[in-house]
Amino acid sequence: MKKHNFNAGPSILPKITLENTAKAILDFNGSGMSIAEISHRTKDFEAVLNEAVATFKEVLSIPDGYSVLFLGGGASLQFLMLPMNILNKKAAYIDSGAWANKAIKEAKFVGEVVVVASSKEANYSYYPKNFTVPEDADYLHITTNNTIFGTQIHEDLDVKIPLVADASSDILSRPMDVSKYAIIYGGAQKNIAPAGVAFVIIRNDILGKVQRNIPSILNYQLQIENDSMYNTPPCICIYAALQTLKWVKENGGVVEMQKRNKEKASMLYAEIDRSKIFKGTAKAEDRSIMNVCWVMEEQYVALEKEFLDFATAKGMVGIKGHRSVGGFRASLYNALPKESVVALVECMQEFEKLKA
Amino acid sequence: MKKHNFNAGPSILPKITLENTAKAILDFNGSGMSIAEISHRTKDFEAVLNEAVATFKEVLSIPDGYSVLFLGGGASLQFLMLPMNILNKKAAYIDSGAWANKAIKEAKFVGEVVVVASSKEANYSYYPKNFTVPEDADYLHITTNNTIFGTQIHEDLDVKIPLVADASSDILSRPMDVSKYAIIYGGAQKNIAPAGVAFVIIRNDILGKVQRNIPSILNYQLQIENDSMYNTPPCICIYAALQTLKWVKENGGVVEMQKRNKEKASMLYAEIDRSKIFKGTAKAEDRSIMNVCWVMEEQYVALEKEFLDFATAKGMVGIKGHRSVGGFRASLYNALPKESVVALVECMQEFEKLKA
Repeated sequence: MKKHNFNAGPSILPKITLENTAKAILDFNGSGMSIAEISHRTKDFEAVLNEAVATFKEVLSIPDGYSVLFLGGGASLQFLMLPMNILNKKAAYIDSGAWANKAIKEAKFVGEVVVVASSKEANYSYYPKNFTVPEDADYLHITTNNTIFGTQIHEDLDVKIPLVADASSDILSRPMDVSKYAIIYGGAQKNIAPAGVAFVIIRNDILGKVQRNIPSILNYQLQIENDSMYNTPPCICIYAALQTLKWVKENGGVVEMQKRNKEKASMLYAEIDRSKIFKGTAKAEDRSIMNVCWVMEEQYVALEKEFLDFATAKGMVGIKGHRSVGGFRASLYNALPKESVVALVECMQEFEKLKA
Repeated sequence: MKKHNFNAGPSILPKITLENTAKAILDFNGSGMSIAEISHRTKDFEAVLNEAVATFKEVLSIPDGYSVLFLGGGASLQFLMLPMNILNKKAAYIDSGAWANKAIKEAKFVGEVVVVASSKEANYSYYPKNFTVPEDADYLHITTNNTIFGTQIHEDLDVKIPLVADASSDILSRPMDVSKYAIIYGGAQKNIAPAGVAFVIIRNDILGKVQRNIPSILNYQLQIENDSMYNTPPCICIYAALQTLKWVKENGGVVEMQKRNKEKASMLYAEIDRSKIFKGTAKAEDRSIMNVCWVMEEQYVALEKEFLDFATAKGMVGIKGHRSVGGFRASLYNALPKESVVALVECMQEFEKLKA
């Protein structure tokens, strides 16, 4: 049976990424050795890393003056690494979801944190707006997409202090005006690569302003000077990232990705809004095009498990909602084909016909 | 042409590890999805992680009261994470090589470090001995094998304070009396898995004694409570680690690994000692069975590049010595077959016949 992979992350990746990575694990570049078995200091691997950086810069139109890093660990390590490098006096954070909350918690180990807005009281069902950014803060931190709650910020903010974004779950899903950000970072395991690598896009002039001694392994400047190889990088994940970045480029870039993602999301939200048995959980204007969350209408709540079983039997994978929201969630990352959304919508309609 | 992979790391892995990992990247457990595309919170992946931990405990005879973690990033992150968790007043370090030196440098960001012995003055050509361990230090840190300089400590030390070991480059190469250690850690990319994951074996009672607030992502206790999944783990690397651990188990365990490694190392050292044109760099009693370093005898130094080319033409890979030592280095990790050492020795003998 054909599986439709709606996992929230780790999640669906382009087929070519998986095929090429599997090949390189058996024999890299016809070397007779695996990409797992060669030094990261070889010309062959350096070419992979350099091409991944160059392709990232190209597809996201990253301006001059920015560096791109691929670092071991995930976004959770960046929650700490980021303030270590740029939090001097005070940092401002938007609390838009569980991951924003974790980022805040971790930054507090480093220095003073001001939460300028939060939607926690509404179980993060909307994206905080109309907040005032303290002009004396070192930076404003946002989470561009909230994987768990299905909300997303749909614009690149204009703020007077350096803007920093965790874009783990919507990077490459749409064009971004990178020039508006000082740092964009994220775990790669949604739209880029297998779990185990984080990307960090840094405007170089944001660094070098803090007083503290930064431990070497947490020091962005040191990683920039060493082209992401201060220590041994996660080579397989970076190789996979390159395959995905090339796939994005060859498939019309982030403009086309956005078009496809909007189309997929619109289809699913339309069905949720039409349905008698389902309803969406996120405020309409803040709905994410990456993670769609919905629950049963009140009178059908008892059918939740039955729908999950019904959908699973039809090949839907990963649509159980996160425990913080309940109900259902479908993640529509770049690599998810439209046909999977069509199948999910059909499945929702069939179930409604049986039950309502 | 058959390649003989003597890379120092990332380095040769068992063929079955690579084959099974490549398969799981295409289709994991017949699920129709890649291991890169499923949640780490699924039963299928949790089974992988649990089996990797259990097999590690079994093959290394890890006693009760210890936890085994697989964490994103490599040993370099542990250089910081370790003192964050257990350095309270003062730590004692043995400076036995470049990696020990990096561990010392990183620990100094956390607290007071006393270097109780160093072989730096002799370019780390021997393993420091006869040192006095300060009894008021929180722990003594050693590096069991020095990848760059080809020295190794061949016993499990008896010390009165907690003993901590970076065993990145000789883990699973020999039996260890784990009960003598408080923590054994390392990057996995020599004897276990592709780069991108570190292992940490922790005696649970060593934790909880420091005063500082430990950032979540650097907190061993939090990772223990979350079974290595406080954050998304590097799933592919952990899957590969499981394949290697099973391979070790099925191939006679660490006792057999040690036997094979000793045999391989003896063959190569015997040739180095016999040869008129080569000589070893490490003190005989401290020679590593994992990384063998040698240089040209003085009158043949001009032939260094010629020998490298000669060996490369015969399929030898990765035998150029690290710039800190020069000459040559052959890494003989568990997965390197004896036939590769036979081929290297033949190649050294042929070259000698041509030149001496």
